[in-house]
Amino acid sequence: MASMSTTAFPKTTTTPPFLSHPLAKPDSLIAATVSFPRSRTLPRRRATTTLRVRSALIQPDGGKLVELVVPEPRRREKKHEAADLPRVKLTEVDLQWTHVLSEGWASPLRGFMRESEFLQTLHFNSLRLDDGSVVNMSVPIVLAIDDEQKALVGGSKSVALVDADDNPIAILSDIEIYKHPKEERIARTWGTTAPGLPYAEEAITNAGNWLIGGDLEVLEPVKYNDGLDRFRLSPFELRKELEKRGADAVFAFQLRNPVHNGHALLMTDTRRRLLEMGYKNPILLLHPLGGFTKADDVPLSWRMKQHEKVLEDGVLDPETTVVSIFPSPMLYAGPTEVQWHAKARINAGANFYIVGRDPAGMGHPVEKRDLYDADHGKKVLSMAPGLERLNILPFRVAAYDKTQGKMAFFDPSRAQDFLFISGTRMRGLAKNKESPPDGFMCPGGWKVLVDYYDSLSLTGNTRLPEKVPV
Amino acid sequence: MASMSTTAFPKTTTTPPFLSHPLAKPDSLIAATVSFPRSRTLPRRRATTTLRVRSALIQPDGGKLVELVVPEPRRREKKHEAADLPRVKLTEVDLQWTHVLSEGWASPLRGFMRESEFLQTLHFNSLRLDDGSVVNMSVPIVLAIDDEQKALVGGSKSVALVDADDNPIAILSDIEIYKHPKEERIARTWGTTAPGLPYAEEAITNAGNWLIGGDLEVLEPVKYNDGLDRFRLSPFELRKELEKRGADAVFAFQLRNPVHNGHALLMTDTRRRLLEMGYKNPILLLHPLGGFTKADDVPLSWRMKQHEKVLEDGVLDPETTVVSIFPSPMLYAGPTEVQWHAKARINAGANFYIVGRDPAGMGHPVEKRDLYDADHGKKVLSMAPGLERLNILPFRVAAYDKTQGKMAFFDPSRAQDFLFISGTRMRGLAKNKESPPDGFMCPGGWKVLVDYYDSLSLTGNTRLPEKVPV
Repeated sequence: MASMSTTAFPKTTTTPPFLSHPLAKPDSLIAATVSFPRSRTLPRRRATTTLRVRSALIQPDGGKLVELVVPEPRRREKKHEAADLPRVKLTEVDLQWTHVLSEGWASPLRGFMRESEFLQTLHFNSLRLDDGSVVNMSVPIVLAIDDEQKALVGGSKSVALVDADDNPIAILSDIEIYKHPKEERIARTWGTTAPGLPYAEEAITNAGNWLIGGDLEVLEPVKYNDGLDRFRLSPFELRKELEKRGADAVFAFQLRNPVHNGHALLMTDTRRRLLEMGYKNPILLLHPLGGFTKADDVPLSWRMKQHEKVLEDGVLDPETTVVSIFPSPMLYAGPTEVQWHAKARINAGANFYIVGRDPAGMGHPVEKRDLYDADHGKKVLSMAPGLERLNILPFRVAAYDKTQGKMAFFDPSRAQDFLFISGTRMRGLAKNKESPPDGFMCPGGWKVLVDYYDSLSLTGNTRLPEKVPV
Repeated sequence: MASMSTTAFPKTTTTPPFLSHPLAKPDSLIAATVSFPRSRTLPRRRATTTLRVRSALIQPDGGKLVELVVPEPRRREKKHEAADLPRVKLTEVDLQWTHVLSEGWASPLRGFMRESEFLQTLHFNSLRLDDGSVVNMSVPIVLAIDDEQKALVGGSKSVALVDADDNPIAILSDIEIYKHPKEERIARTWGTTAPGLPYAEEAITNAGNWLIGGDLEVLEPVKYNDGLDRFRLSPFELRKELEKRGADAVFAFQLRNPVHNGHALLMTDTRRRLLEMGYKNPILLLHPLGGFTKADDVPLSWRMKQHEKVLEDGVLDPETTVVSIFPSPMLYAGPTEVQWHAKARINAGANFYIVGRDPAGMGHPVEKRDLYDADHGKKVLSMAPGLERLNILPFRVAAYDKTQGKMAFFDPSRAQDFLFISGTRMRGLAKNKESPPDGFMCPGGWKVLVDYYDSLSLTGNTRLPEKVPV
């Protein structure tokens, strides 16, 4: 499993091998660090158009951040409009994608994909824009409907997207309905059609035979009311926060697992290296994924609790770290998905992306092996069209160094000194309320994990509901 | 099945919808038509470096046509070198790819793919060159070896590629051996992993677990000695022939089936339209595929015999048609493969590419449906990275017009007047020695087909050996 392996920079002290673009220093900014944002006091998107975004952060794909939430003054009118339209019901994953689209993580995409975008994504992992430029887009962001829904839509040019309780969420207009080639979509996205792919089982196999694309207008900012909405900063809000902190380099760390000291080592080491390169104020975007995850991953609420402890315990510096939730569902599509993870962070202002062993990977659902070659993710990322502007930071594996009693970059010349603690092993320890070796994870963070597995065993080893106070 | 449907331009007389690039007229050339090349009197590649290729033809991908046949004076030395190297045995399909690479159809590729090229092909259907430009490359051109062969290669930096009889064919140098992810390769190339894909069964499923990439040097021009070598013009030779004929537009027609009058209608209509656009001398490159095909396709030798009759019978004008064999194997990979078919023809000098319904498609090997959406091929082709320079000419279906007694562009307003003759139906008629409707195919061409199926029935309904005099 990729998830728990920790990681290090390649040994070379010259240009990292996968740095896809020469390191360019932005104009220097006055450094002004503020602490980890505790609450969402920032004014919302549309209300803040007077705030001038400084040009030092990397430009969003397509040059302008897409925002698809209807401005406050027009919401009433739009809701009336939605009430008269044919309805398409959104699943939980559909709603997550609606959220993703609405905040411009997929900029310049302005709605669920039409066929031309879907085909470009499947075949080229990128979209060609009208001006001839290319942006990365490796995972299909599509909305499936079944035959019955298609019949209901009839000749309408717009539809209302509604949640499970029929509340209107969005309008999709200038729609295009086209066939949903499920097998082909799965094969080209995952490189396998083996049964048991978590996302495919959740959102594709039993989905409708049609896809509906169009321009999206979301009626209200998407909220989950799970106590975590304050961590769900949009790309616009993140950019504002990063500006406020005076970031002159932003390095993003995608994760869907508890943070241990190997991760922390990597993140602090990255910051050190960026300082060495001459940046004055590199900021870490610690960006746990918040959408759909597979059943044996630790749920978001517990992970956030754990991340909070890690910051409290001083493992990471709150002054130079922004923790925020990335609202995308998880596909476990390895080299295809890692491009999406990186591309979305460009839109949030990151110009450095950390990539480790087997990103977004998992075990093969049928065969006894990893689904992807552990090195393909970083290789594909370094070659991906539309990601040339992003500096890719690959790293080697880290492990528990028994001689130092802490996580350290693995040194193959003294392999016997290192202990690899896999995700399976970590889960086993936490389930049995055993302690990991000292220095593997801060005690506060470990306690959260033990509590999680403890609560799980009470409910018969299935995943708990997401709502846990952070 | 795509193969037998005939085709027409879209009705619009303005810019065709999938014309990916504005029509640019090359400098005008003196028109000088010559007849259909009967024999290979053209001097071979390396001997003709003094011939100046005129700049009017479209430039090869990467700017320069790759040629990997060792020049005559160095062959003896290279054969000695090969004799001392570890040997890798080529299958029939491997040999066809060696041929393809040696003549620069895959320019700027200089050998079997290394992992970086393989990954770019799988994920992006294109390769980024050192200068940042992008060329199309949608199908993996790779060489598989098994564990035993890998062990034999050991730490050698070069290997000799040998044929079934151990004759040295080529040297592969500066080699890289990497894992052969068969399932992923199949899934990403075909969009399915269903058993029964002809190319996968022939060349992947039972192939070795490793791929070996490197720089190729072919010791002699690849020959098949099947009476058809004279039709196998290399891109270099085709360019010379097209120059000689004074072509100011070259339109390529890929096929792997007998030519009927629907095809002919399309090709002559394309020429007419190119003349209307202002070209003075558009030349048709009628370019049957010569490599591996599936068992129920008509074998190359019979197809060439049939194509010859079509030209003899005056259905196509020999003065403005070049018939030549495209040495690639057939993958039946639909939208992925059609890009390869188009890209290779750029390297041969074609700046127009005709694309019909479901190019390179076939029936799903397991389900009762076509493997690909019939329109995806032309859509994907029109959006493919690296093919921007090529003018894509899509066309509508043609059918037998009963009121005119000939093949005509299908007119949906009088659908009842048209008869669609599928490949299956055509094969059925030929097998039963029945005649198709008058005007479906020239009598000489039809007779070849009847003879083919006749000869088949004598051998128990399996495909005949390829060697049939043309």
